[in-house]
Amino acid sequence: MADLPYATVRRIMKNAGAKRVSKDAVYELMRLMELYAEKVASTSVSIAENAGSRTTVMKDDVRISAEEIHGVISL
Amino acid sequence: MADLPYATVRRIMKNAGAKRVSKDAVYELMRLMELYAEKVASTSVSIAENAGSRTTVMKDDVRISAEEIHGVISL
Repeated sequence: MADLPYATVRRIMKNAGAKRVSKDAVYELMRLMELYAEKVASTSVSIAENAGSRTTVMKDDVRISAEEIHGVISL
Repeated sequence: MADLPYATVRRIMKNAGAKRVSKDAVYELMRLMELYAEKVASTSVSIAENAGSRTTVMKDDVRISAEEIHGVISL
């Protein structure tokens, strides 16, 4: 696991309008954020590799990866 | 912004197989993770509010919210 900071994830939930949040809810969002990041990251790596075997992942790889993953999801 | 840790986000990219990553790429993934979390969080708040005006966001609210947002995306 990537150890995202509990306080930061909880703050995102409070900023989204949550009056109170259970600990389990914070850990669940943390888990989902990591899964999402892993998905975007691995797609980014594939995009970079397919661009002439480039070994450095660039901003545009991440951006394009997210667009592919989101599909109709607008973040 | 939520200030996710740079080193942690970079590590997720390295774990996904990236040999090298540009700084901009790390910041882009960080930005996307925050947007994703805000989206899941705000949907979670709505789900909790619709469940008899519950004021505490629970784990299941987050889980259901993510399912609604992902649609066909399997994380």
